[in-house]
Amino acid sequence: MNKISDSKQFRAALGSFATGVTIVTARSPDGVDVGLTANSFNSVSLDPPMVLWSLGKHSSQFPSFMKAEYFAVHILASDQEDLSNRFAKSGADKFAGLECGRGINNVPLLDGCSARFQCRVAMRHESGDHVIVVGEVLSFDSSTRSPLVFHGGKYSQLIKRRNGELEPDWRIGEDWLSFLLRRAYHQLVWPLRNQATNNGLSSVHFSILSILSMGERRTTDEVCLLLNMVGLAANSNDFEQLVTLGLVELDGEPEKQTIGFTERGRAFAIDLTVAEKAAEENATRGLDYDEIMLFKYLLRRIITDTEADLPPHWRREKVWLDNNIWSPSCISDPGQKLSQNR
Amino acid sequence: MNKISDSKQFRAALGSFATGVTIVTARSPDGVDVGLTANSFNSVSLDPPMVLWSLGKHSSQFPSFMKAEYFAVHILASDQEDLSNRFAKSGADKFAGLECGRGINNVPLLDGCSARFQCRVAMRHESGDHVIVVGEVLSFDSSTRSPLVFHGGKYSQLIKRRNGELEPDWRIGEDWLSFLLRRAYHQLVWPLRNQATNNGLSSVHFSILSILSMGERRTTDEVCLLLNMVGLAANSNDFEQLVTLGLVELDGEPEKQTIGFTERGRAFAIDLTVAEKAAEENATRGLDYDEIMLFKYLLRRIITDTEADLPPHWRREKVWLDNNIWSPSCISDPGQKLSQNR
Repeated sequence: MNKISDSKQFRAALGSFATGVTIVTARSPDGVDVGLTANSFNSVSLDPPMVLWSLGKHSSQFPSFMKAEYFAVHILASDQEDLSNRFAKSGADKFAGLECGRGINNVPLLDGCSARFQCRVAMRHESGDHVIVVGEVLSFDSSTRSPLVFHGGKYSQLIKRRNGELEPDWRIGEDWLSFLLRRAYHQLVWPLRNQATNNGLSSVHFSILSILSMGERRTTDEVCLLLNMVGLAANSNDFEQLVTLGLVELDGEPEKQTIGFTERGRAFAIDLTVAEKAAEENATRGLDYDEIMLFKYLLRRIITDTEADLPPHWRREKVWLDNNIWSPSCISDPGQKLSQNR
Repeated sequence: MNKISDSKQFRAALGSFATGVTIVTARSPDGVDVGLTANSFNSVSLDPPMVLWSLGKHSSQFPSFMKAEYFAVHILASDQEDLSNRFAKSGADKFAGLECGRGINNVPLLDGCSARFQCRVAMRHESGDHVIVVGEVLSFDSSTRSPLVFHGGKYSQLIKRRNGELEPDWRIGEDWLSFLLRRAYHQLVWPLRNQATNNGLSSVHFSILSILSMGERRTTDEVCLLLNMVGLAANSNDFEQLVTLGLVELDGEPEKQTIGFTERGRAFAIDLTVAEKAAEENATRGLDYDEIMLFKYLLRRIITDTEADLPPHWRREKVWLDNNIWSPSCISDPGQKLSQNR
């Protein structure tokens, strides 16, 4: 146990208690709007309905808040970090350019919050360098917006707690990230591949069309290299079959042969995109919006963190992808490569 | 704005303020240990160091807490949900079977928390149906354990806020879940596949060995079906090449041919597993523990939610996988299938 000599450590220990973030607003009797960010809010009583927050004595707004008999507490939503920062800064007119409603006794009301409480001051208690302000709640409203959270001196994000659910009672190797990623991918695209199979397309064909739908200006050699990344190999038959099906057209000399969609191929790719959107929605139906956003972020994080070791042609770099810069040195003999691939 | 007529709605609105969870303990002058779960904790003052919490007047422990001059606040860690529930229930001896330390004035101290504060009561303020207890902090300690969080009447989990970081400035289609999953998988296993390639193994070989390392009692037909799920097709050459390399052995009639590791193959698979662990650690080095756990949970969720439509042989069902039940009706002519596959 630490004695309270190190106030920095004490602050850090207090910071381990997570809280929502609120903005408290008021209007002083002389007509000045005041507002500050506070995480020292809490509910106190249900009957009568009461809440509290702590007002710092060193705040420049202290005198105005002490004179105000009404205040409003705004529980901020997760997308209101900027608003939180604006009201956390001292000085400057915090309401400049901000559209405010007016509540009881003309107290400024902010929009887009998770919940709001309009209160009349019931008691003030001096406590060290702060004053505990207890208010009786006169009126409130709330929404289902997810909350802004503060912990350890930083904003953080809340995610539904999932412990116990879907614990890995799976077989050896089935909780490896590689297994989970591969399985999730293939199950997600299974309806699409199924649809492609019904149209006489192999998984190589399917992948070629996927690559083209993300950018058409490619040589067949490039497509082969990109396929190779996902463990697939195309031979010239695969391209010819797609030509026969009327989905792509090949252009140019064999060594610099480019590939692009026919009109029919492009329509087919659009159909696939629609199906892909449906498949993604189906696969993520058990996740809420925040979870999907976080999940995609984590995938991008992994992709970014594992990209450095890849050969240049596989890096997701704008230079290579956008300008289609192509270094023939990547493969020794493109023609041979094509025929070698099974 | 709602008037305070509906106390259920009012509680729900208050619940939109996220909080940590604490257990407050004390020892009454007559030597009775008391303790309760509270999320109405907050810091009040830094100089002098003070905190507060609200004590319900209807609590059976109210008289004991009112007599106690010292108390301890425990900020719970994310794995202390059970402890939180234990102290949230009324009645019963909450300390039964619990190992407690003793703090200032013999106040019970619980272990494994994010932070603990030992306090002397400074003030008590009646406020509606609760009493605000303000304590001067005499001593504290803290750890880096992630916190238990309460929001909307439920426990939830905190995740580092990541907005703005790695926003999708990617090309069209690159923020599809299918693209992200496929790319993340292939980049993660790229070092392993590279290692396999250096040993003369194709991605089909690599996948056959991966399948075997998760369970050896398989026929080659089953392996072909499983490969098909990930868009790969094996022919008999692939199996023979693995035999030639001394990694697997084939057994039985062509139609019921089974495949298993040789000793050398098993050693190779163990090497791959070690490399896989390293690759997973490398790929997730930008994620913290909670994020990895959540990420795997979300992958399992997606896998579970997309499994129902799969053909029986691809479902991750214990029946099929563990008992190796095999329905020959899945493919019309296994022999032909093998040779048809490119």
